[in-house]
Amino acid sequence: MKYWNSTLKSMTEYIPGEQPEDIDEYIKLNTNENAFPPSADILNAITKECSGNLRLYPNPDAETLTKICADTWGLSQSNYFAANGSDELFSLIFRGFIDRDQLAAFSYPSYSLYYTMSEANGIAYDKIDLKDDFSIDFAKFLKKKYALVIFCNPNNPTGTGVNREGLIKFLEKYKGVAVVDEAYVDFSGNSMIDLVNSFDNLIVTRSFSKSYSLAGLRVGIAAAHRDIIEGFKKIKDSYNVDRLAQAGAIAALKDKKSFNYRVSMINNNKDYLTESLDELGFKTVPSEANFIFTNHSSIDAKTLYEKLKENKILVRHFDGPRLSNYLRITVGSMIEIKAFLKVLRSIIDEI
Amino acid sequence: MKYWNSTLKSMTEYIPGEQPEDIDEYIKLNTNENAFPPSADILNAITKECSGNLRLYPNPDAETLTKICADTWGLSQSNYFAANGSDELFSLIFRGFIDRDQLAAFSYPSYSLYYTMSEANGIAYDKIDLKDDFSIDFAKFLKKKYALVIFCNPNNPTGTGVNREGLIKFLEKYKGVAVVDEAYVDFSGNSMIDLVNSFDNLIVTRSFSKSYSLAGLRVGIAAAHRDIIEGFKKIKDSYNVDRLAQAGAIAALKDKKSFNYRVSMINNNKDYLTESLDELGFKTVPSEANFIFTNHSSIDAKTLYEKLKENKILVRHFDGPRLSNYLRITVGSMIEIKAFLKVLRSIIDEI
Repeated sequence: MKYWNSTLKSMTEYIPGEQPEDIDEYIKLNTNENAFPPSADILNAITKECSGNLRLYPNPDAETLTKICADTWGLSQSNYFAANGSDELFSLIFRGFIDRDQLAAFSYPSYSLYYTMSEANGIAYDKIDLKDDFSIDFAKFLKKKYALVIFCNPNNPTGTGVNREGLIKFLEKYKGVAVVDEAYVDFSGNSMIDLVNSFDNLIVTRSFSKSYSLAGLRVGIAAAHRDIIEGFKKIKDSYNVDRLAQAGAIAALKDKKSFNYRVSMINNNKDYLTESLDELGFKTVPSEANFIFTNHSSIDAKTLYEKLKENKILVRHFDGPRLSNYLRITVGSMIEIKAFLKVLRSIIDEI
Repeated sequence: MKYWNSTLKSMTEYIPGEQPEDIDEYIKLNTNENAFPPSADILNAITKECSGNLRLYPNPDAETLTKICADTWGLSQSNYFAANGSDELFSLIFRGFIDRDQLAAFSYPSYSLYYTMSEANGIAYDKIDLKDDFSIDFAKFLKKKYALVIFCNPNNPTGTGVNREGLIKFLEKYKGVAVVDEAYVDFSGNSMIDLVNSFDNLIVTRSFSKSYSLAGLRVGIAAAHRDIIEGFKKIKDSYNVDRLAQAGAIAALKDKKSFNYRVSMINNNKDYLTESLDELGFKTVPSEANFIFTNHSSIDAKTLYEKLKENKILVRHFDGPRLSNYLRITVGSMIEIKAFLKVLRSIIDEI
């Protein structure tokens, strides 16, 4: 660590879900990827872009993509910004919209990348506990002067959605920058993106990694007042979204039929998974996402995680208060869910 | 700029080369893209990766790619790190390897992105003038305590290479982090990458946007001591290089035949372009890159730039001391060069 700066030395490393080398031997329900592949229309659009033109830089502001974002989600093209995954959006937010002597706040439990990124950018933050039902405690976010807050809608890892009325009341009083991370929102449809028209300090982020089945392509979108969008454009790298990623995201937004199919299939499978777990003695938090957060009445979650892994099934287990007795399980295909349930039943029988 | 932080407000925006909307009507010699497309082998490898697996996250550390970097350029796999273009490498370097109370230094004239990125990350810097022959004034980089220096090899926009002996003598005395940006080095072959074995404070960066004809794909590579590589991995976004970009870069490194073809064609065309400009009264700086830096004995560079643009030919003109009377011209295909020269002759005849 001889040449690491003070921030790099002191930050906590973000730990993504396991990606073992012999990944093909596992049923992988640990990183919330979509169970269904992108459609032929989407793959064909990317393949078509894969030409000699790859020698040329991409459109620096992904202008065709941001246009179709406006057509699909409302607002104007000037309210959209494209990035190399939501990760890059968060990184740019910490670098451009909060100063190092200011304070941020995030819910706990929530997506731990927020804490990591805040540390990586030298920004101090408070963790504000979710209420007992895992809803956001908006009042506590108003008790100090926070320059940046991030709400995850629906929340990762609990699956609970943001309460719209609660958010609006909060935004009417709050003076800093508020981010609503909607990586998983398409599985509920309860988006806050229209509130960008009413609040010039609101940034809503979207991802193509979940409902659009393009985790391998890396595209994230921010929606915000055009003044904030101009800030993103000023601080970003010149060509941050490559040609193939732009083409894939454009085709994904156009292909509404396959989008609707994937979302409804996942939601059907989620209901089946939740009901089956009920029968096995689990209590599952109502989920608006493509994953569930569940705990068993008598069996320790870490034990279950380990036994499942021994049987080549990966789910996510987090250490920490209120997390350690839960499992976060991605909603897989019906084949994956049935294989998972079969193994789970035999583990429970053995214990 | 209501919600912009102090850094975002005060930084100077980076201005990339023009990308006009009716780009297909232009001969584009302004952003140093490769005149030749990637080979069929490279395009086929990307197309093959364009499958249902795009629903899954990419390998977070691009492990197959870094392995083949070591096979191609020497050093070990643990000495390599992959990013979303060189731009992301520089961004990570400013965020991870220099503190905000430390000082950076870059040559002038050089790639202006260094100045922009330094400002975007709140790092103060000195500009150190190149010598009269556009070589680096290493002694001046030792006069103060700099925590970070970047040398561009060969230098953009002058095309001049880094002197190897001068660099070694510098590194023997220098205590901070030294970056050698080798985006264009394949056109000369004068790489400093082997010096990573001798100096644990040296980072050499490479790009797939120039010699590998993949500007549209966004892949950059850093080579450094494994301790620095571990720092990059800690601070980077989880999945920063997408599946298709990894596949394209891997195929590009394997396809040595098309690489050699592109490099030799560009160098041949560069000689022809330089000689033709000599005959028209230009004086061109000897170039180790895929662009030339040239000025005319009597005609103002900005006038030439504007007249060329009127004729749908884009070259690069920079304002600023020692820059404003030069044009930077990308070495195009022979068809592009001949069309450019024809227009240029008629402009000169008219003046």
